[in-house]
Amino acid sequence: MLAHPVGHAKSPGAFNALFEDRGLDSLMVPMTCTPDRLEDLWAGLDAMQNLRGIIVSIPYKGKLLEKAVKAHPRAARVGAANVLRRLPEGGWEADNFDGYGFVMAMKTKGHVMQGKRALLVGAGGGGSSIAHCLAEEGVAELTIADVDADRAEALAAAVRREFPACSVVTGPADPAGMDIAVNATPIGMKPADPLPMAIENARPGMVIFDIIMEPSETRLLQEARARGCHAEAGRPMMDCQMQAWVDFFDVDRKNRDV
Amino acid sequence: MLAHPVGHAKSPGAFNALFEDRGLDSLMVPMTCTPDRLEDLWAGLDAMQNLRGIIVSIPYKGKLLEKAVKAHPRAARVGAANVLRRLPEGGWEADNFDGYGFVMAMKTKGHVMQGKRALLVGAGGGGSSIAHCLAEEGVAELTIADVDADRAEALAAAVRREFPACSVVTGPADPAGMDIAVNATPIGMKPADPLPMAIENARPGMVIFDIIMEPSETRLLQEARARGCHAEAGRPMMDCQMQAWVDFFDVDRKNRDV
Repeated sequence: MLAHPVGHAKSPGAFNALFEDRGLDSLMVPMTCTPDRLEDLWAGLDAMQNLRGIIVSIPYKGKLLEKAVKAHPRAARVGAANVLRRLPEGGWEADNFDGYGFVMAMKTKGHVMQGKRALLVGAGGGGSSIAHCLAEEGVAELTIADVDADRAEALAAAVRREFPACSVVTGPADPAGMDIAVNATPIGMKPADPLPMAIENARPGMVIFDIIMEPSETRLLQEARARGCHAEAGRPMMDCQMQAWVDFFDVDRKNRDV
Repeated sequence: MLAHPVGHAKSPGAFNALFEDRGLDSLMVPMTCTPDRLEDLWAGLDAMQNLRGIIVSIPYKGKLLEKAVKAHPRAARVGAANVLRRLPEGGWEADNFDGYGFVMAMKTKGHVMQGKRALLVGAGGGGSSIAHCLAEEGVAELTIADVDADRAEALAAAVRREFPACSVVTGPADPAGMDIAVNATPIGMKPADPLPMAIENARPGMVIFDIIMEPSETRLLQEARARGCHAEAGRPMMDCQMQAWVDFFDVDRKNRDV
């Protein structure tokens, strides 16, 4: 697991519990370096024969995508890898399961995306991946909101280019008239945070999805539930992403003896 | 833990049990690379901010000593590091506890080395470190035996240079007339191996030390015990070396948050 800083990362603990459950001789280890040393660290990771794969987080998702000789369109179109695996023939393959985890969590909960109107608040790394996946799943209209209007417009343009059938616009963080509204910002992690969207305009029965993991029940979700919305938390999205990583790493494959 | 291959290494398991016992947020991970990629791997290890130290084994003990800006005489005189730690001011410090572990195990068992006659069989990496430490502990005479006579003579010359007060010669693998005889070869790891020295010439009361860890009781030690010798196995040497590594890494120091 590569990030900077990395001390807060939850993935190694979750993966190692899974490895232990399955009796596998595998381990996920957090590692970090300052941005000026990334090229050196990368040289070492590439040379490290018994390293099978890397989970990547901020700020190295873009840089590590550049290292891959092969990338899934999910990763290429957002310009960011959140996982790499070593290819048997040498070199690395990148993928990005941020948006995939969101989509799988939605499906697991029985929520249809096809033909729906969706609001996405937050056009950063996670939001970018979710926006593309919502369009891929066939939402009819996607409204992107971000405090940085340029960033919102850039993401909207990118999604339009990839998925011309989806009507993508930018707009306010307002769930009025939507079927699905997603918070992909960190707003709500701290108790004093404002609400990330105008929840008073949410209608009963719509989906309010908050990708925040901690707290597990944000104020946004409490307000959504009080209004009769389907309130969906971040944890199932992480669980789905974790399963995707496990499949990508093929962790049940017999370990090569090195 | 760096070695090539590394799959057989026992140190990570032993260290991780110790880290868990002490409730420490530390982990020892086996890593490996082919010799042609060592420079790349080293660049990565140096860049890896949350890596505190490295246990080194075959074939990288010499190369890693060269990476250190500071080395204990124990490591410098044998031209090999078996451990490195990151210095707070940057760069790495090397040490080598192979011979130190042997000496501490001898002392723990109450065996005096000062003024004694010692036979050392095996002039490889481990033997080289033990030879210097025996001389440092004040053995009066040290006989070095190796199937490669040139290697035995080179080690004898090196020890003479460092410890002129010690009479160092090369000779046959024969414990006749000795107070201490040490097997520092791998001969005895396999059931069909011959004995590494002429054990029939051992006298009761002398020390026969076998650095082999597996099996814990080699045939050499069985024969030695049958002749009334003090038979000493490899495990306590590893335990003493482990404690030295723990002190060197200062594992009880509060982990830096990175």
